[in-house]
Amino acid sequence: MTPTMTRADAERRIKLGAGDRVAVVAGSGRLPVNVAEGLAEAGHSPFIVMLAGEADDDPKLASFEHDRLALEEIGSLVPLLKRHKITHVVLAGGVGRRPHWRQIRPTFALFRILPKILMALARGDDGLLRVIIGEIEAEGFKVVGAHEIVPDLLASEGPMTHARPQKGDLADLDAALAAARAIGALDIGQAAVAIGGRVVALEGVEGTDGLLQRVKELRHHGRVGGRKRGVLVKCAKPGQELRADLPGIGPATVDAAHAAGLAGIGVEAGHSLVLDFGETVKRADALGLFVVGLQAGGAQ
Amino acid sequence: MTPTMTRADAERRIKLGAGDRVAVVAGSGRLPVNVAEGLAEAGHSPFIVMLAGEADDDPKLASFEHDRLALEEIGSLVPLLKRHKITHVVLAGGVGRRPHWRQIRPTFALFRILPKILMALARGDDGLLRVIIGEIEAEGFKVVGAHEIVPDLLASEGPMTHARPQKGDLADLDAALAAARAIGALDIGQAAVAIGGRVVALEGVEGTDGLLQRVKELRHHGRVGGRKRGVLVKCAKPGQELRADLPGIGPATVDAAHAAGLAGIGVEAGHSLVLDFGETVKRADALGLFVVGLQAGGAQ
Repeated sequence: MTPTMTRADAERRIKLGAGDRVAVVAGSGRLPVNVAEGLAEAGHSPFIVMLAGEADDDPKLASFEHDRLALEEIGSLVPLLKRHKITHVVLAGGVGRRPHWRQIRPTFALFRILPKILMALARGDDGLLRVIIGEIEAEGFKVVGAHEIVPDLLASEGPMTHARPQKGDLADLDAALAAARAIGALDIGQAAVAIGGRVVALEGVEGTDGLLQRVKELRHHGRVGGRKRGVLVKCAKPGQELRADLPGIGPATVDAAHAAGLAGIGVEAGHSLVLDFGETVKRADALGLFVVGLQAGGAQ
Repeated sequence: MTPTMTRADAERRIKLGAGDRVAVVAGSGRLPVNVAEGLAEAGHSPFIVMLAGEADDDPKLASFEHDRLALEEIGSLVPLLKRHKITHVVLAGGVGRRPHWRQIRPTFALFRILPKILMALARGDDGLLRVIIGEIEAEGFKVVGAHEIVPDLLASEGPMTHARPQKGDLADLDAALAAARAIGALDIGQAAVAIGGRVVALEGVEGTDGLLQRVKELRHHGRVGGRKRGVLVKCAKPGQELRADLPGIGPATVDAAHAAGLAGIGVEAGHSLVLDFGETVKRADALGLFVVGLQAGGAQ
């Protein structure tokens, strides 16, 4: 971590007692690794539940005590946690696919919550996460957010990089933030790209990588062509369940934003995660991109 | 036109006098052709201003009296209209690119409105259209909407096809309509696609064709995979300048929606255009898709 990162959010950190043990339910991406390493650095030995097809084959994760679980075996999660005497659970990382329902291994616990899960799926990701969190807590575990375990992951306000937004970038940041909030309110996506003062692309299920790939291709589009710079903004959904699915960026986001010809990235301070912080900032500095924390609930 | 098309909007038709002459400023797509043919059928001989790079080489359009104009010569539009004793102007069709500012042929009229145009560009398409319409009207012409010339172009309420939305499609129509309205309010796009009850993709500058192409690719995405059906919804922006840029669908939209695996299309009744109506419905019927007019200001 660099000195540009404030520690104002450090008080959010969960106090873990001697008998406490944290399980990291690990999806894809760098967040599970960051959380596990943060726990280890603080002297706590994490237990990793690697979601098959998402987190498997990560040697860093596999270096901790771990087990694998297919999405279809999700009904076995609670028994697994109990067997390992887990007290706290962190849901970290992405889950890019939906379970194959026909392959789900039936358990009594699962049958009990299945109607809730189906209703939640119809309401979108956020609804689903709330149900899963509620069910895990009903079993006596405490579900905590990645940022409550490793507060340094939370984006701080202001520029994190040498580069800062130029005057024209501010209009892009405003426009993209308003758009990201609007689609977040509908539980569609968390990210938007603005170029030349107007929003050109919005995130759907394709995710931020797919969004940036599209922007790269749109550079040749008649309505974008010739315009330089532009920004990516990611922000949390209004009223989002902060213990899961916080928007995040990392080194790969910086690379993809640069490949899309963007000048920088804005994230909502206090409500977004910057993964592999040192590496992310280093990469952005090397490429001349800015990464800036935007005031939460600011520009609308 | 088929009997399923109501004529409730026919009273919107502009009454043209003997000395009136309508110019169709023609961008890309089928709308200029539909408007020109509608005028000709009503006994009015249209004058077509074909925007170079957008409407050129359309033999149907070229069969009417016409002239060509590059976007960069837009300052010559008013003199051209005056020369042909035009009284009414319809702006019809898409303009996919922005003018090359350096190639713009300067005229005094253009220099006068350039600051307004630049400000309007920054506010998005709708702002730009308002400025252009205002300037043309300030020169004494009456700018009318395509639907005021050919009211049958407007989508009516209810199903236009043999196929009708199934129960599951109604949730998709609601979700996509709410999303399309939200991004329309931000002047980003006019269309959204929902599959399995949730919005998966939103229109940006790539346009509806690009959106549907993306949905086709997303069919293999983990979060969409396995789900059938889904809908495209297009709707007008709230408070949209109805005399230009009304959302439209046509036979090509039906083909692209079908290729994307969608079950149907919803358009906002009274605020959307169905181009080549007979052909559009015939194509949808052949493919088993529904096309339905949604109550304007209905589901939110």
